[in-house]
Amino acid sequence: MKEITGATRVFGIVADPVAQVRTPQVLNAYFEQEGLDAVLVPLHVAKDGLEAAFKAFRHLRNLGGFIVTVPHKADILKLCDEVSDAARAIGAANAVRREADGRLVADMFDGRGFVEGLKAEGHSPAGKSVLLLGAGGAAAAIAHALALAGVGRLSIANRTRSKAQEIVERVQAAVPGANVQAADADPRGYDIVVNATSLGMKEGDALPLDVSLLSPANLVAEIIMKPEMTALLQAAQEQGCRIHLGRHMLDHQVRLMGRFMTGQPLDDKQA
Amino acid sequence: MKEITGATRVFGIVADPVAQVRTPQVLNAYFEQEGLDAVLVPLHVAKDGLEAAFKAFRHLRNLGGFIVTVPHKADILKLCDEVSDAARAIGAANAVRREADGRLVADMFDGRGFVEGLKAEGHSPAGKSVLLLGAGGAAAAIAHALALAGVGRLSIANRTRSKAQEIVERVQAAVPGANVQAADADPRGYDIVVNATSLGMKEGDALPLDVSLLSPANLVAEIIMKPEMTALLQAAQEQGCRIHLGRHMLDHQVRLMGRFMTGQPLDDKQA
Repeated sequence: MKEITGATRVFGIVADPVAQVRTPQVLNAYFEQEGLDAVLVPLHVAKDGLEAAFKAFRHLRNLGGFIVTVPHKADILKLCDEVSDAARAIGAANAVRREADGRLVADMFDGRGFVEGLKAEGHSPAGKSVLLLGAGGAAAAIAHALALAGVGRLSIANRTRSKAQEIVERVQAAVPGANVQAADADPRGYDIVVNATSLGMKEGDALPLDVSLLSPANLVAEIIMKPEMTALLQAAQEQGCRIHLGRHMLDHQVRLMGRFMTGQPLDDKQA
Repeated sequence: MKEITGATRVFGIVADPVAQVRTPQVLNAYFEQEGLDAVLVPLHVAKDGLEAAFKAFRHLRNLGGFIVTVPHKADILKLCDEVSDAARAIGAANAVRREADGRLVADMFDGRGFVEGLKAEGHSPAGKSVLLLGAGGAAAAIAHALALAGVGRLSIANRTRSKAQEIVERVQAAVPGANVQAADADPRGYDIVVNATSLGMKEGDALPLDVSLLSPANLVAEIIMKPEMTALLQAAQEQGCRIHLGRHMLDHQVRLMGRFMTGQPLDDKQA
């Protein structure tokens, strides 16, 4: 990467642990590609240091912003000065911009990155029926972004159905009129199936649904990046489905977070 | 420079303003040369944010340490958990190491860097007579380091003589038996003349002493790095003096601060 000088704008990734994150590599590549004199560094902050860190971030005058990941995505909402509607609705944020006056503005790009990735690959979810597997933080963000993107029908399937129902209610409150409900993990009749569980990251994980029910009518989408070809995607291909890789979400999230933190307009505020 | 990952150790340079500092370039080159997975970034903190920043630094678990410069060198003493004897004696510090438990340990390398630079160029000040021009922060640090290095006689010349006298008293308190006094800016009879004023940085600056009094017996040393050849050094050469460039101080300071912040033993704790 290019040389850091006293004039280089500084960005961070706040996480605990932090050694495993890939954010420095991808965001520094983004800055370089955009010709920005900026650098992103890992910032290892545990829960007990989060409040002190946020107080200091307001005083770091050359800090442009930072990305936030596990375990802080929900906790930072109360530490920022401004929180986007999306982050408020989802109950979590993953990027913070520091304004010139020190104010910290939070937004959430997990779901938007996924939806932008779908669109870029020619799979706009507008008007489509989507089965979303999982009810964790990623699922909540994706459900919200799908609703904003005009999904026709959204079903959320989760082992603990009450957690799916919670997301349903959050989405209905944030996007009035959204057609969203808790449902079983049965892909029949859906245009798009999205795995937003962590099943598939580890060798030997169970599949997140009964793959024998998949048909060529389904597009099967992952958010897992590693391995790129999860057991679910392999099974989906064998059933004749089209597939959508997890890395598309990351690619588009990087662009959105980079633009947000550097104060550029997002290309598509809707998605 | 090499790629930054989540495992890269982070260092900083804390200053206000910060855009003009050269520390990122020189310390990042040092890290690379030493094969360390570390990066130093500028941290722009004004006086009103210093305390909050230091609180947060204790919580940044992958922060190795940071360099401190104008205007914070004196103020940080009360914000650190441990302060070296040298920093305490000089009343200022310019480098802080963060220990694994979050404790912040401060030390001062301005004077030591200068003395190490002198030694490396074959001009050990031990037993020599030195005329030090100026009574600011740099002069205070250099006076202390010269006394520790066993200077034979040290005279400090400053327009406001009471400021020179203050340094004399500090050095005498810190290094009992040191032969140090306030004096006029007359280089006759000294082995080494050191310019620790800022005169010479700007075109048209007055000279810090009457150069017609210089003789080939004097070694004339600068701490100004830019321009490399100050008007004083040019005049000294014309008078037949040997000269010693400002960059030697920086070179040795970088090595000392790099070793200190990364927890390596300093080569020479005396100097």
